[in-house]
Amino acid sequence: MSSIKYLDEWSVEESFFDPNHLGKYEAIMAQGNGYLGIRNVHEEEYPHEQRNTFISGIFNRFSESEVSELANFPDVTMFEIRIDGELFSLLKGENSNYSRNFNYQTGESYRSFIWSDNLGRKLHFEFRKFVSMYDKHLIMTKVKIKNLGIAVNLSVSSGIDGTKTNSGSQHFEEGDKRYFDNQFLYLHTTTTVSKIPVAIASCLKSSSGVKSRPVMARRKMQEVNSFEMNTGEIFSTTKYSMMRTERDLEYSGDNYLVDDLISSLKTVTQEDYTIHLEKSAQAWAKIWNQKAISIDSEDFLDQLLLNFARYHIHVMSPIHDDRLNIGAKGMSGEGYKGHTFWDTEIFILPYFSYTFPEFAKNLVNYRMKGLSAAKKNAKINGYKGAQYPWESAWLSDGEVTPKWGDIDIITGEPTPILTGEIEHHVTADVIYGIADYLLATQDAEVDEKLFEVVMEAAKFWCSRSTYNREKDHYEILDVIGPDEYKEHVNNNAYTNYLAKFTLDRAIDEYNKKANSEMAVGFQKDIDVIREVARKIYLPQINEQGILPQDDTYLQKRKIDLTKYLNDDKVNTLFLDYNLEQVNNMQISKQADVLLLMLMFSNKFSLKAMRENWNYYYPKTLHDSSLSLSTHCNYALLISEEELAYQLFKKSFDIDLGSNNMASSDMGIHSASMGGIWQNVVRGFGGFALDKDGIVINPKLPAAWRSLIYTVVFRESTVKVCITRNNIKLKILNGAPIKVTIRGKEYHLGDCGLTVTI
Amino acid sequence: MSSIKYLDEWSVEESFFDPNHLGKYEAIMAQGNGYLGIRNVHEEEYPHEQRNTFISGIFNRFSESEVSELANFPDVTMFEIRIDGELFSLLKGENSNYSRNFNYQTGESYRSFIWSDNLGRKLHFEFRKFVSMYDKHLIMTKVKIKNLGIAVNLSVSSGIDGTKTNSGSQHFEEGDKRYFDNQFLYLHTTTTVSKIPVAIASCLKSSSGVKSRPVMARRKMQEVNSFEMNTGEIFSTTKYSMMRTERDLEYSGDNYLVDDLISSLKTVTQEDYTIHLEKSAQAWAKIWNQKAISIDSEDFLDQLLLNFARYHIHVMSPIHDDRLNIGAKGMSGEGYKGHTFWDTEIFILPYFSYTFPEFAKNLVNYRMKGLSAAKKNAKINGYKGAQYPWESAWLSDGEVTPKWGDIDIITGEPTPILTGEIEHHVTADVIYGIADYLLATQDAEVDEKLFEVVMEAAKFWCSRSTYNREKDHYEILDVIGPDEYKEHVNNNAYTNYLAKFTLDRAIDEYNKKANSEMAVGFQKDIDVIREVARKIYLPQINEQGILPQDDTYLQKRKIDLTKYLNDDKVNTLFLDYNLEQVNNMQISKQADVLLLMLMFSNKFSLKAMRENWNYYYPKTLHDSSLSLSTHCNYALLISEEELAYQLFKKSFDIDLGSNNMASSDMGIHSASMGGIWQNVVRGFGGFALDKDGIVINPKLPAAWRSLIYTVVFRESTVKVCITRNNIKLKILNGAPIKVTIRGKEYHLGDCGLTVTI
Repeated sequence: MSSIKYLDEWSVEESFFDPNHLGKYEAIMAQGNGYLGIRNVHEEEYPHEQRNTFISGIFNRFSESEVSELANFPDVTMFEIRIDGELFSLLKGENSNYSRNFNYQTGESYRSFIWSDNLGRKLHFEFRKFVSMYDKHLIMTKVKIKNLGIAVNLSVSSGIDGTKTNSGSQHFEEGDKRYFDNQFLYLHTTTTVSKIPVAIASCLKSSSGVKSRPVMARRKMQEVNSFEMNTGEIFSTTKYSMMRTERDLEYSGDNYLVDDLISSLKTVTQEDYTIHLEKSAQAWAKIWNQKAISIDSEDFLDQLLLNFARYHIHVMSPIHDDRLNIGAKGMSGEGYKGHTFWDTEIFILPYFSYTFPEFAKNLVNYRMKGLSAAKKNAKINGYKGAQYPWESAWLSDGEVTPKWGDIDIITGEPTPILTGEIEHHVTADVIYGIADYLLATQDAEVDEKLFEVVMEAAKFWCSRSTYNREKDHYEILDVIGPDEYKEHVNNNAYTNYLAKFTLDRAIDEYNKKANSEMAVGFQKDIDVIREVARKIYLPQINEQGILPQDDTYLQKRKIDLTKYLNDDKVNTLFLDYNLEQVNNMQISKQADVLLLMLMFSNKFSLKAMRENWNYYYPKTLHDSSLSLSTHCNYALLISEEELAYQLFKKSFDIDLGSNNMASSDMGIHSASMGGIWQNVVRGFGGFALDKDGIVINPKLPAAWRSLIYTVVFRESTVKVCITRNNIKLKILNGAPIKVTIRGKEYHLGDCGLTVTI
Repeated sequence: MSSIKYLDEWSVEESFFDPNHLGKYEAIMAQGNGYLGIRNVHEEEYPHEQRNTFISGIFNRFSESEVSELANFPDVTMFEIRIDGELFSLLKGENSNYSRNFNYQTGESYRSFIWSDNLGRKLHFEFRKFVSMYDKHLIMTKVKIKNLGIAVNLSVSSGIDGTKTNSGSQHFEEGDKRYFDNQFLYLHTTTTVSKIPVAIASCLKSSSGVKSRPVMARRKMQEVNSFEMNTGEIFSTTKYSMMRTERDLEYSGDNYLVDDLISSLKTVTQEDYTIHLEKSAQAWAKIWNQKAISIDSEDFLDQLLLNFARYHIHVMSPIHDDRLNIGAKGMSGEGYKGHTFWDTEIFILPYFSYTFPEFAKNLVNYRMKGLSAAKKNAKINGYKGAQYPWESAWLSDGEVTPKWGDIDIITGEPTPILTGEIEHHVTADVIYGIADYLLATQDAEVDEKLFEVVMEAAKFWCSRSTYNREKDHYEILDVIGPDEYKEHVNNNAYTNYLAKFTLDRAIDEYNKKANSEMAVGFQKDIDVIREVARKIYLPQINEQGILPQDDTYLQKRKIDLTKYLNDDKVNTLFLDYNLEQVNNMQISKQADVLLLMLMFSNKFSLKAMRENWNYYYPKTLHDSSLSLSTHCNYALLISEEELAYQLFKKSFDIDLGSNNMASSDMGIHSASMGGIWQNVVRGFGGFALDKDGIVINPKLPAAWRSLIYTVVFRESTVKVCITRNNIKLKILNGAPIKVTIRGKEYHLGDCGLTVTI
């Protein structure tokens, strides 16, 4: 029986203490605010827990042999509780009435249980915790313990623990430890290589009469509350912790990290847990209310899934700072080291572009600011122009993809990771994402900056292409496409089409700017760009109606995938085959041709879309969390609506589901979160843009009675209410816009609009 | 009730699973062979365990802000056991028949218990573990599990875990991981700064039918054995692990770390656990039998204490390599970072000098080889000659004393550690230790090398002394003596007398070599040395009969120490006072004047020794483990025999006792181990040397019926049997020697000797 219970549209529960699936809850209940991110680890320590605290942008490289990664911060979440000197653990004794609830609406976790043993000791525990959405530097925990049994000696200790690492790699110096004013623990340290000063302060406010004393050890400091507790007594303590770094936008010199931090901590300790939680919940409420999306479904899990996804998008996205971007696991685990992938542009950015364009702008600017690093990267790899890193961390870190992966079951050696070397489509994905953002916003500032970025990206693609004299066309050889089970392929359709998209956009932009000063620098490049754009090889649908994924995919061996498709775990294929063998089979890790056809659905006939679905879908294992949402929206395009809903349901399992309790161990799947929004709004909600307005062609699942969503189009915020019978639209603010519904154009003005369907 | 049980003269038991005192057992049951050292951590993981593996000489400095320390190696001792997928822990379910025995004779630990839960699962577990004394690279574990309950799915995994750190400081690169021949896990890595290549290989040999598969994660690789286990079935697996480093004396190029290591591992896996244990036990037996020491006491704990001490001395002493020395906690924990102190020469070296002089030689040579680092150190500090570091690691590391200690309860800031800066007596202690070794061995080679060392040490003391014109003498100002509760004192008696000892020895050596070429280099120094030796201020016994510890000690405030003396914990004084306050009180951490008087007992009258005992003993907290053994032997000199035995008994509590279950958390106390031997042989056994023979004046405690010990004097190994009535001596090998018993000289020849007392 699974310990996960889904309580309502906003909350999940760990319904009994489940030490076998710590990672699941740590990740799905991860907390944060885009600046800070913590895994939701139990206060008391357990084997195999993964106690992570990250601050966006604080990257460090352990050594030359590792890559830059989000550094696991000194921890403030752990409590050492001793009962009569014995370390408390739920593994010991008995527990009853256990429940850990997580509320995605407020971001608070609440755990309570009664613990007892056969010596007559019995205590009621309550733990509350949140990371403030209101004050982004603040983490709060409240512990309340009531003695229901015999008198005991209780000791509750917590502080700052700098022994934490990223799976063994330590990114911080031990630093300087202080105990200010006999109440504030303080640690000032720096990352070891990137040398970023950071400061952490914490303080325990305990129920009256209990005096704490400080204890210091290597890399560790704690306040200890130790006292005799009689039957019926209640002890409570509130822990206030704050963190700051030199990379904070507000950084204003050393004081910011020392005196100012202590004085901020002093200020926040003037108010209690409830007040701070309320402030944070209000900040969350703004997000929920201003851009409400609600699903009236027979199954409340649909709304829960969406809320869960949106919660995590906001927890993981450092949208306050345009030097930062989103990690593939957000800040909910060490997986992918906090690195940014194409996941941002293709899967997550649309959420922001169409819901919070002001935040999307920061994400887009990250790529703009990454131009010079991308140019350097191209140069290192022998190309021209700008090549965006496959994995990206702090902008100046450049390419940060690790070199080695899991052990190869055949050779006994680690598998080389080639994505950093040859998975190049990201440099087109970035342009695609920005173009979509511009379509949504017409942001003049970004539009202005796009020119240089797209010209440099186009230059990259020209230098990346190889002229085939015989066929008189340009080919893109030796790449990995979205389907990473195929290494060293030529003319991956997705890559070539996206490169073509980039080249065409560059030409458009150049034409717009042809007579400007900006264009001068690219005069010598534009002819090449035009030549390659004209002659780049775009794989075409063959006689069987199939768009070949690459030059050789269709000739490879086919195998029966039933076994792997039925397995709840991903990557089980690699228990039987190594990557070299899989490379020679018609097996796709995720959507590749289908993703391309979805992104450019107007270029393909419905027949072609169906035929390619029939060919590729059965060969796809969805071993990437990027796969399901693509297939869901694709299924809607070919009117496989029931299947689409099934696929949407399946994406519940990626993180939130109970079928695979280990899937989120390394962190939640960021792209999946974006994909869920895309399924709801762009898929079932049928939201799209055309040149000068929005398009709404909803395809509600049978289980849904209605769907309400809020989107932003240029200056206008629009609320869309879809029922079985009609579509109601309302401008929440901004100017009237044009709306196309079922092919018919409408004017959406101040009075709103109701269209019967 | 304490979990410790003392079973017999060779073994202790953890009689019930005691998760509150993990550190105690990890340290007192630590295993090793002088090359390798591991803490005895449970196979399954528990919170607050301290899983350490060290290899002598493998030091690394995490960063500029930390000091060089013994690096905690990737771990091979942990096992992940899952029952029906749930991580096994003794904190869960019920356990019965629990026992963990440690046998100091063989070095093997054996743990067994029956675990069950209310689902009907019931298994009998047995774990055996040892570090081979025969093959110093080998660690072995044997796990045997019998299913006494319902059928379960059992999974047993173990491998190489490189996530371990020194309390958060990671000293190793992730390194290269391999799985050779589908059976050998292999990790090749290097320390991060000292760049020492090391290699670790391990292999599981499991009961037939169970096939393991490799699993790899960051810094981690495991072999997993997973299978269905029916009622009554038995599973067993033996883990062979081997470690090698580039600093091994046998190192012979890269092959040594790769092919040779794997081929060694292949060879050892040809033989089973029992055979390897037998080989190791035989190597231990040599130590016990060749240099037997046995106490026939009313209380078997006396013999257990001695065996425990000797076991740990051999486990922690890297006597195979004269570039290495003994850590203050051996290799049984991270305490003192594996650093060598004066503890070696004053407390531990005598054991080797008089029992295994061939090993003592390596320890002495370490200091000889340290001469150039000591010269550099003197220069850095503005002195002449050679100044031995207060704390020492790899020779070229120089001074490695950390700069900061515990939090100051008054200021809230860390306490500065001044020992590295001003506790200088080590440079004389080293000479004292070598002189004692030479007295024991007449080792011509060392004698030859001593010259330069003692001349440079004398030069240091000259430059360290300050001429007081008024008093026309040389003073040694601003030091810390053995009593570290007194910082910045002038003319600490211990320091000044030891400096004088060094100067005198230098003059003697110079006189011997005066006409040799070696002396030439010191011609310009010898006059200064003679001048300082003549005029160095040696504090004298005052009118009250007291030898002042330093210039100001006797004028300081006296306080009532009863509270602290009655406390089982050490350092409790600092919960009430800070070091600055203690500095102004007549409180001693450990023997200081008394140690001096013990070391030079022939220079003081019995009356003076009694009077100084009466003065200093009540002011001494024994907050250092170096204190009790000194006081024990001192008490014997002043005929306080009962008290001496009480103090000896008290030294049981330093590590082995049940009164303070946290005292060994950071590791066992090396100097105490040497002190225990010194109490038994030099104290109660009354063993000493005079110029050309040995002296035996035993003072057996009332509880002892007899004492047998074996000592080496120059070329002769002598067995001494002391009973209440007589002393029997026998030459085990070597030439006849002169023996003085109760003031009377005897000739000890091949026939042995019996003297009635």
